[in-house]
Amino acid sequence: MTQHGGDTSRLRRINLVTTLRTVRDGGPTSLTELARRVGLSRPTVESLVEELLVAGWLKELPPETGQMGRPARLVAFHAAGSHVLGVDIGSYSVRAAIADLSGAVVASCTRPVAADCGRVERLDATRAVMEEALKEAGLAAGGIAAVCVGTTGVVTAEGVVRLCVGLPDWVGVDLAGELGGDFDCPVLVENDCNLAALAESWTGLAQDVSDLVFVLSGVRTGAGMLIGGRIHRGRRGAAGEIGALPLVGWHRAPSHLAGCQGLPPGTRPEEIAGHVFGRAREGDPAARWAVEQYAHDLAEGIAALVLTMDPDLVVVGGGLSRSGDVLLEPLRRHLDPLCLEPPRLEISALAERAVTLGAMRHALDQVDLLLYDFDTPLPRPTS
Amino acid sequence: MTQHGGDTSRLRRINLVTTLRTVRDGGPTSLTELARRVGLSRPTVESLVEELLVAGWLKELPPETGQMGRPARLVAFHAAGSHVLGVDIGSYSVRAAIADLSGAVVASCTRPVAADCGRVERLDATRAVMEEALKEAGLAAGGIAAVCVGTTGVVTAEGVVRLCVGLPDWVGVDLAGELGGDFDCPVLVENDCNLAALAESWTGLAQDVSDLVFVLSGVRTGAGMLIGGRIHRGRRGAAGEIGALPLVGWHRAPSHLAGCQGLPPGTRPEEIAGHVFGRAREGDPAARWAVEQYAHDLAEGIAALVLTMDPDLVVVGGGLSRSGDVLLEPLRRHLDPLCLEPPRLEISALAERAVTLGAMRHALDQVDLLLYDFDTPLPRPTS
Repeated sequence: MTQHGGDTSRLRRINLVTTLRTVRDGGPTSLTELARRVGLSRPTVESLVEELLVAGWLKELPPETGQMGRPARLVAFHAAGSHVLGVDIGSYSVRAAIADLSGAVVASCTRPVAADCGRVERLDATRAVMEEALKEAGLAAGGIAAVCVGTTGVVTAEGVVRLCVGLPDWVGVDLAGELGGDFDCPVLVENDCNLAALAESWTGLAQDVSDLVFVLSGVRTGAGMLIGGRIHRGRRGAAGEIGALPLVGWHRAPSHLAGCQGLPPGTRPEEIAGHVFGRAREGDPAARWAVEQYAHDLAEGIAALVLTMDPDLVVVGGGLSRSGDVLLEPLRRHLDPLCLEPPRLEISALAERAVTLGAMRHALDQVDLLLYDFDTPLPRPTS
Repeated sequence: MTQHGGDTSRLRRINLVTTLRTVRDGGPTSLTELARRVGLSRPTVESLVEELLVAGWLKELPPETGQMGRPARLVAFHAAGSHVLGVDIGSYSVRAAIADLSGAVVASCTRPVAADCGRVERLDATRAVMEEALKEAGLAAGGIAAVCVGTTGVVTAEGVVRLCVGLPDWVGVDLAGELGGDFDCPVLVENDCNLAALAESWTGLAQDVSDLVFVLSGVRTGAGMLIGGRIHRGRRGAAGEIGALPLVGWHRAPSHLAGCQGLPPGTRPEEIAGHVFGRAREGDPAARWAVEQYAHDLAEGIAALVLTMDPDLVVVGGGLSRSGDVLLEPLRRHLDPLCLEPPRLEISALAERAVTLGAMRHALDQVDLLLYDFDTPLPRPTS
């Protein structure tokens, strides 16, 4: 009789994953306590723990001393046994961040890119920032269990950018192929707003929320959605693209900031919003008027999303979220009359970290998913 | 040892429901064949079948003859053992329809009501049409296992109309309370567009569709949505209310038909659309222009829903769906340029039956749900 044929193997896998999750979520534990928690016999748990130690999912801690008898064996989740890499390809910068399996961020790097740079240059900068993050974390590509890349635009399930207006020469780029070459692990590609929504649900304002609308405000305006706590991509990955509807003002919203009177000559595009919101905070009338117009147009698209979805919460994030104190009041004032009832509206505190955080969460979820793929051997956290 | 304590009772319930579903979905069967299908011993299945016969979920058919030995006992799902009642409260009519547990419609009644009639009159007409349907089906209220009432407006989870612009004096009406008095069974209340969406998924154009946008076009314009095959109500039941956004043209869409040149004096509001679309079909220029304008405004709201959700399919139904041959071409022509990609768009064939069909499906789902409520005794299909 073998432990690895058919149903027996499947049952052992369930027991392995249950044991792993119990340690991960409950903290370091003795084997006796662990056996009690998972409800299996001590010898079975010892065998399961042995397999998880060998695979690298658990690690052994120094035994507990100071008690009578043999010191108890202690095991803990080996969070640093592997890592995930999250990438954010933006108009003016590319970012990469690395987290261990507990979600603790161990590296975070940013590089500026020109908004009008071509595909090759943007991909090169992205690869460079990914390598920089690996170096900062002291890891090789083999130490990564999953990669997730966020980009503006509509992305196919295979990781190819299908539609994109924000980045030049970006339609058709196979991001999974272009950026996944060095990695022997899953490489996911997802719309950046969807990832930012996931970040809010993981570590931001939407932790107890089922249906979320996340609005990215900044140089571009976009939206991502969670329904039932999961990313809603839609039939072809194009959910949340309300900005494409000319009737709502998202296409013209940033122009109110760029056209603000008194903008110093030579202000770079990515600095315009910060400048205008800063002056509005100090009471400058031209800047306040620009913010008013911006909030008006932003509200139109948000209203369309709210009236369609009736979400539990709307979170506005992105570059402008640092100006939340200036934006929130006029945005509420324009939004509420457009909706049947005032929606719950908050300004994100995650700012520019949202997309990489969401990308790392998405990658961690992928690692979790593979644990439950009963048709494959128990994955090692790293190859 | 009792069969009805704790886990044993729960396991027996699972076995009962599995047996019931196997017969319902697989058709009449001998007990031997049934035991094979559910994978339980013959004595166990006999005991389960006995309980389901007594409860009224199954019925015994005449035994099979013409074979050697003892004739085999045959059992079948007792579809006529109980019924569900679906109700549709509209502006110009109220409808009620009754289906047996297999979903076969056994009665269907309609009464006209005046669009400007008050709450009491509309409720009286609704009760009358429900009684008429019961009479037509030869049933008493006790023969109904679940009722579902569809209404325009936003409905609370408790069955109270919270927001409504279509029907006079309708906000605050407790439909579950007002219409449920005679029934000793669950009485559900749901937005009519959500129910029409469910009908498309049950028996219409959306049978293989996960995410559906259903647009009700007619005297009013409204929308309902399925996500993952289930009604998406939103936080407070207000999903799909894109018509409330003045930027999209749903509020003015019907006025193009009502303002059509050449409308005979005294045409009743509910006849206007049929008249205009009929003339448009014959090539009348004024009517074609009215349809063109109507399609333009309808497309704006649909585009907002499509760009938000990226659904698998959009179905347009309601009173105007009988004019689908005239509506579809201009609607596609106005809709496609507003969307990132042309959405799948179809005209419903269910016409005025959509809401009562969806209401009956929702009631059948509720009956199904109670079977799995392990904390209650196995329900009898009728009280």
